Amino acid sequence: MTGPDRLSLNQVTTKRWSLPDAVQGCVDAGIPAIGLWRDKVAETGVAEAAKLVRDAGLAVSTLCRGSFLTAPGPDGRRAALAENLRALEEAAELGTDTLVLVVGGLPDGSRDLPGARARVAELLAELAPHAGDFGVRLAIEPLHPMFCADRAVVSTLGQALDLAELFPADQVGVVVDSYHVWWDPELERQVARAGAGGRIASYQVCDWTLPLPADALLGRGHVGDGHIDFRALTGLVTAAGYTGWIEVEIFNEQVWDTPGADTLRTVVERHRAHLERA
Amino acid sequence: MTGPDRLSLNQVTTKRWSLPDAVQGCVDAGIPAIGLWRDKVAETGVAEAAKLVRDAGLAVSTLCRGSFLTAPGPDGRRAALAENLRALEEAAELGTDTLVLVVGGLPDGSRDLPGARARVAELLAELAPHAGDFGVRLAIEPLHPMFCADRAVVSTLGQALDLAELFPADQVGVVVDSYHVWWDPELERQVARAGAGGRIASYQVCDWTLPLPADALLGRGHVGDGHIDFRALTGLVTAAGYTGWIEVEIFNEQVWDTPGADTLRTVVERHRAHLERA
Repeated sequence: MTGPDRLSLNQVTTKRWSLPDAVQGCVDAGIPAIGLWRDKVAETGVAEAAKLVRDAGLAVSTLCRGSFLTAPGPDGRRAALAENLRALEEAAELGTDTLVLVVGGLPDGSRDLPGARARVAELLAELAPHAGDFGVRLAIEPLHPMFCADRAVVSTLGQALDLAELFPADQVGVVVDSYHVWWDPELERQVARAGAGGRIASYQVCDWTLPLPADALLGRGHVGDGHIDFRALTGLVTAAGYTGWIEVEIFNEQVWDTPGADTLRTVVERHRAHLERA
Repeated sequence: MTGPDRLSLNQVTTKRWSLPDAVQGCVDAGIPAIGLWRDKVAETGVAEAAKLVRDAGLAVSTLCRGSFLTAPGPDGRRAALAENLRALEEAAELGTDTLVLVVGGLPDGSRDLPGARARVAELLAELAPHAGDFGVRLAIEPLHPMFCADRAVVSTLGQALDLAELFPADQVGVVVDSYHVWWDPELERQVARAGAGGRIASYQVCDWTLPLPADALLGRGHVGDGHIDFRALTGLVTAAGYTGWIEVEIFNEQVWDTPGADTLRTVVERHRAHLERA
């Protein structure tokens, strides 16, 4: 079953909407869950945001996102820890069991990729028990390798799993985001591995479209507009035993400039066409 | 030893230069080898180009490049075979033992990545014995995953080696190009594997710089201008037993707009600073 009952709107997809707008939009479109962003939650206030989504009857699929873990030195480490603890606490208060974690790129001026990766593992070790205490899972999101220098030194599902498997499965999992992993020759094996270990904390979808825009972060398209075989990918994720939310997360200026209700209509249509029968 | 005696100029780095210009530029700069491009060779004529580089005392490190292998159907297959046979023949005539192979992306409108990858393996099987006959090695170049849809469905060194190892090492090898592989969490292991099997046919260098330009193909920087640790990478390649050319290949409009002699001066300086003592 991958029907609309499993569809979630990641609210960055309707970036111009406030959190109350996005909640109402989901209700109007019949979308049963939402993935929240901390900046939007902060605008509304955590307690008020939690009440809004609860009163609307929406589930909160994820909170995006923990802060980067790769800053060097004791100060960088302390700041990262504090910020991620706050994020865990917010996630718990918002009623989601999943905090998406983008681990960060190379520190300014550094070329030490192994060093940055080692810091990620160290900070995860400090954070994981707290995640357990909050009942929230840290979901490591491998980002596409084109973001390795500036956003995430974790680039593949296999690498994310190598990290996650150092900790209990209810404390650290992984995100399977179509945009970031679709190209990976190891995809089939690593999705199966993630499923077997109960590590798939989130399945996020958007499409790989070309050409890449000036800001490579914003090149993501609606499901079906690009080169990703969503039927095949969703088949892998389903075969791996994942039965959770399918969260649509699109960074794209044109999508953002579209009225939110229109975007949600497209999101629902594309879910039906490309994901529902996978 | 990674001194200037191992430096090669890939001629796309001085794209505005004709082949005779590039040959003379290398001689003037004391660069002992050149990587040629088929379009530049065609302007001069293969026999004349071969004579020019030979008379100048330059080695030809590589010929770039074989044509895409992923076109579907018998016509696409036949055309790819014919074009790559011509490229092998040219490589032999030019006196290089290495034909760089970029395997191609998804065919127009297709989302069938496994299918495209299967066609690459099929065509390699047809081409490999011919490569042996010509005394030229097919060097599979994994491209950065951001080119998976449009240029190369082979995205990692491990994947390239899985393909190469289906054939004798003197027929099919791999290219280690810093820009394409630097982010790979498997890098150390796969470079060692490539070296152990005698599969490193070429080591190409340029740097990962940000932001990515409008045309993502053209974002490569001079060695030292970006985020790649060339000392570490060259150390891995050297430890793997590679003693061949270190070829500088830069796609970048600003570099192309710089007078060629200035570019070559920078290339030599950066080689000394970042590669020579690795």
